[in-house]
Amino acid sequence: MKGHIVISKATIDRLPLYFRTLRQAQEEGVEIISSEELGRRIGVTPEQIRKDLASFGEFGKKGVGYYVRELIRHIGEILGLHRNWNIAIVGIGHLGWALANYRNFASLGFNLVAIFDVDPAKVGQKVNGVQVHHLQDLEMVVKEIGVQIGVITVPAEQAQDVANRLVAAGVRGIWNFAPIKVNVPPSVRIVSEDLSVGLSSLSYYLSRQLCDK
Amino acid sequence: MKGHIVISKATIDRLPLYFRTLRQAQEEGVEIISSEELGRRIGVTPEQIRKDLASFGEFGKKGVGYYVRELIRHIGEILGLHRNWNIAIVGIGHLGWALANYRNFASLGFNLVAIFDVDPAKVGQKVNGVQVHHLQDLEMVVKEIGVQIGVITVPAEQAQDVANRLVAAGVRGIWNFAPIKVNVPPSVRIVSEDLSVGLSSLSYYLSRQLCDK
Repeated sequence: MKGHIVISKATIDRLPLYFRTLRQAQEEGVEIISSEELGRRIGVTPEQIRKDLASFGEFGKKGVGYYVRELIRHIGEILGLHRNWNIAIVGIGHLGWALANYRNFASLGFNLVAIFDVDPAKVGQKVNGVQVHHLQDLEMVVKEIGVQIGVITVPAEQAQDVANRLVAAGVRGIWNFAPIKVNVPPSVRIVSEDLSVGLSSLSYYLSRQLCDK
Repeated sequence: MKGHIVISKATIDRLPLYFRTLRQAQEEGVEIISSEELGRRIGVTPEQIRKDLASFGEFGKKGVGYYVRELIRHIGEILGLHRNWNIAIVGIGHLGWALANYRNFASLGFNLVAIFDVDPAKVGQKVNGVQVHHLQDLEMVVKEIGVQIGVITVPAEQAQDVANRLVAAGVRGIWNFAPIKVNVPPSVRIVSEDLSVGLSSLSYYLSRQLCDK
């Protein structure tokens, strides 16, 4: 990491999109990409791309474009994706199951190391090669394996309790899918996913189209 | 809708978050909310809140706050959530199953009206009260029921083909969960979900904490 670069939150939120889009381009064989093309793929203006990428160094040549491989490596470093985070999923319902089988995680450096549930039919089984432990062993397993990120896919009513236990066991980040606000101490970082956000955006644009007709 | 208000894309992307957060506040019995409190809940500055909300009219009283119910109604209208969109899920694996049972959709005005799959064990069954049709009947069912939004939860290899068929059958929006870039004509709106984005953001902040220690 090159010292303490100051990057705005809005830029940080776009970095994973840059990372993913650049990797897709790389898979297609693209070696150099213009801010216009990158902007088109991500859905922001070329000016925004240039501004975002300028904030953490020089990765392009004027009139040529950005070197895809170099940019991927650098953004990956900024995102900390080279660190191999250990993650655990709490709640192996359909969503937990889908996440446990999401193949992109491993390629980004996230290792699923444990799964927790209370269902006797699931405890002791393996999902995608990973052991399902009983929820009562959460603290022990999290400490023993060294889980840094907990993924919450339990029903809303149990989410806060699970978060409290994950925090007490020492996780430093929580990725919450339960449709409820979960509180954690300031030292723990939480990212909440809300699936209705994507659908609402879609609704907005479709409504506009109707109005314009 | 009050004519053609120009709202920036960044603001539009935050509207669903405002909507959800305000509804949570309303459920807690909050009737008036300050930009500070709203900002704290969403994770943006009070200045940003005031700027965003100012762009579509007057919904607050200086020194008092925003009227929660009024603001929810107005944002809901802007997002087109009063329209009752018909949605269909294509691919009823674990993720499709989780989405079919996601209770927040209905409360936002999204009606799940059809599900498609190729698995003989699933076709003919009902999930959350909704019929699973064979994928070969997609065009017929989409037209007959009037599906406006198609949700793609099939494996990456089949996503483009499913998108093409949904578009040909007349859907106007696609919500894509397959980890691949799906192309649609300009007349169709597409929103792609990428679960690795949330996890990457988390990784960024956790890396920073490590560096700061």
